[in-house]
Amino acid sequence: MIDILIRNVGFHGRRIDLAIRGGRFVALEAAGTLKDTPAAQTIDGTPFFVRPPFYNTHTHQAMTLLRGIDDDCALMDWLTRCIWPREAKLTQEAVAAGTALAIAEGIRSGCVAFNDMYFHQPAVLRTAVEAGVRARVGLMYMNQVSDHIENDAALAMRDELPPTVGLSLAPHALYTTTSETLRDVAAQADRLGLPIHIHAAETESETAIAKERYGCTPIGYLDRCGLLRPDTVLAHCCHITDEDIELIAQRGCAVAHCPHSNLKLASGLFPLAKAMQAGIRVTVATDGAASNNGLSMLAETKTAALLAKYAAGSPDAVSLGRIDRAVTEDAAAALGFVNAGRIAVGADADLILIDTRSTFFAGGGDPDANFIYAADSSCVDTVICAGRVLMRSRSIPGEEAILERARRAVQMLAG
Amino acid sequence: MIDILIRNVGFHGRRIDLAIRGGRFVALEAAGTLKDTPAAQTIDGTPFFVRPPFYNTHTHQAMTLLRGIDDDCALMDWLTRCIWPREAKLTQEAVAAGTALAIAEGIRSGCVAFNDMYFHQPAVLRTAVEAGVRARVGLMYMNQVSDHIENDAALAMRDELPPTVGLSLAPHALYTTTSETLRDVAAQADRLGLPIHIHAAETESETAIAKERYGCTPIGYLDRCGLLRPDTVLAHCCHITDEDIELIAQRGCAVAHCPHSNLKLASGLFPLAKAMQAGIRVTVATDGAASNNGLSMLAETKTAALLAKYAAGSPDAVSLGRIDRAVTEDAAAALGFVNAGRIAVGADADLILIDTRSTFFAGGGDPDANFIYAADSSCVDTVICAGRVLMRSRSIPGEEAILERARRAVQMLAG
Repeated sequence: MIDILIRNVGFHGRRIDLAIRGGRFVALEAAGTLKDTPAAQTIDGTPFFVRPPFYNTHTHQAMTLLRGIDDDCALMDWLTRCIWPREAKLTQEAVAAGTALAIAEGIRSGCVAFNDMYFHQPAVLRTAVEAGVRARVGLMYMNQVSDHIENDAALAMRDELPPTVGLSLAPHALYTTTSETLRDVAAQADRLGLPIHIHAAETESETAIAKERYGCTPIGYLDRCGLLRPDTVLAHCCHITDEDIELIAQRGCAVAHCPHSNLKLASGLFPLAKAMQAGIRVTVATDGAASNNGLSMLAETKTAALLAKYAAGSPDAVSLGRIDRAVTEDAAAALGFVNAGRIAVGADADLILIDTRSTFFAGGGDPDANFIYAADSSCVDTVICAGRVLMRSRSIPGEEAILERARRAVQMLAG
Repeated sequence: MIDILIRNVGFHGRRIDLAIRGGRFVALEAAGTLKDTPAAQTIDGTPFFVRPPFYNTHTHQAMTLLRGIDDDCALMDWLTRCIWPREAKLTQEAVAAGTALAIAEGIRSGCVAFNDMYFHQPAVLRTAVEAGVRARVGLMYMNQVSDHIENDAALAMRDELPPTVGLSLAPHALYTTTSETLRDVAAQADRLGLPIHIHAAETESETAIAKERYGCTPIGYLDRCGLLRPDTVLAHCCHITDEDIELIAQRGCAVAHCPHSNLKLASGLFPLAKAMQAGIRVTVATDGAASNNGLSMLAETKTAALLAKYAAGSPDAVSLGRIDRAVTEDAAAALGFVNAGRIAVGADADLILIDTRSTFFAGGGDPDANFIYAADSSCVDTVICAGRVLMRSRSIPGEEAILERARRAVQMLAG
């Protein structure tokens, strides 16, 4: 018997039946073919089309609790007055509450995975496992910050984690770490077999620091420290030279492009089209909710696509199919989920069902184009991750409790 | 007796009762004060906060039927191969169907007004009146195009239109009209007392044409033709000089900034912060669904705010309050609805109710900031325009029929 049968669902202009067993797609046939197959759960796909979900390659999930606090002030004022006093009070419970909230918001917009860099990592790991999403959670390295960082406890959980949830090594950035730390992280990556996740070339001032301290670009410096590896995710990369682009492509790193955060903080603009042309594995990410401030990968993907056209000066600089692959299959692979991000027999059963009974689709045109360029989360009906149903008919089990838990955590941080 | 009583709704950090009679707000009191007031309809506002809705200052509504068709090709190829052959088949019924679809999508994201420039205007006018939204519908002037333009028929309807729906004079652009036409439009604007709506300084090529033909900038040329008036809406303005900015500010025109369309077509970037500082009435608009491709004023507003920060190189370049006024009160005034766009006794009763039982609001922070910077249409519960309820509990009366009518119109255009 199969676990889930989705009958008569739209897929690239045709209707199919789709079967899931053991967390994988086991059959994809013309609609009607599988209709008599016994299944533990059957979903009538008639009003929907099916797509791979999104994979969010750079976040600080629990920052949902720090969203909407004096948004428009300059960075250092905001950090010292609003963010750091609250982060000083962080607890495992607050991080779990904020992470659960972020996961729910992600699911609502069709996202099943996140690459996290934040505090109290055991709480993040447990929350991801409970929610049923995929995650990479970073062991953090940051000068002069040790409160709330629980690298050893997170590492101790490694063997009990399911295949959907894992660790990374996440030195914060070149300006908050020493060369010794970064070289040690590279050595640990070899020893532990863990991927790397780091902020890189986000702002002009980071470039100035690298030039002054190390006599090279941020990317050149990270390479010198041994951090540019095939399983490294470089977040931001707004300020990269043509040589940096070549180097990132050669080393096989992924870039997590965070357009909303980069615009909102006036950090800069990642040259997406150029990077893709050079063969870099480009992905898209929301960053944390305090600098975006949404966590919709759908909205982020639209902005990434439109900004790339603007930056390249041409409406055909990046095609829909290319950006679509970047936020699904390529992003899944960047997080180590190499068998996820596509609707195909044998692939991991990650999918979203999009409700075509909405204004976004009634005017015709390509459904995938209208999803990315025109829709919002309101048309995401169902989300399945590794064969587990996370949302059905826009309902996430336990969501009310998640909201209430977040409200309590906020009061604790503000108090 | 009052028409609508909204009890115990959130408003700038307090709870209020809000009463509507005859299309206006007649009372705004501390929650509980009006609880025994008889009302034809009472809404429990407890889960919501109230805001002014959005006013969309530049659209081509019926282009919902042309959305998602080969999005990423170059402009002329797209127009000649995809758009124009379909527009040649336009009928009143198709335009009505596409307009109704656009209005519904607007309402879902909290928008109650649109400034239209498209064909078969009597159909647009009737559709706007039936839907209960506010609209300005343009009489069109465009070289060598006369099919589907029904200026005389639209003008003949003028006296029967309600105060919420009116006309404008909408010469398409400087590159599709002669100087004689534009001067004649200016004279008509005086004679008929109608506002003006025109594409202006959208692309580099438009600037090149103005320089070559008229020896000045597009804005300088439009001023020479007498089109820069206090009730003029200039759409786009991506390519404007400091002198143009001064001129637009002096003349009192509004600018309809269309960030998604400008990015998607790689047209350029309107200098929002600079224009606001110069005192220009800046507003935000979606443009048509074929070049955006969404019609969410909420998404458009976020992008406008973020892009302005990026373009100005500073996260505090434009505050939330300033952008919020631009898309509500200022935008309403730009369309001639000078008594709308604010929640205050005596103002026109336009409002939206935002459901705080969502992930966007559970993490605390300023509700208006989280609405603009983080939310999407899924939290817009109720929309009221001029005292009429257009959406309640995310349900728009007759929406299924609107979707079906659009589907039929698309088949007709493609066939």
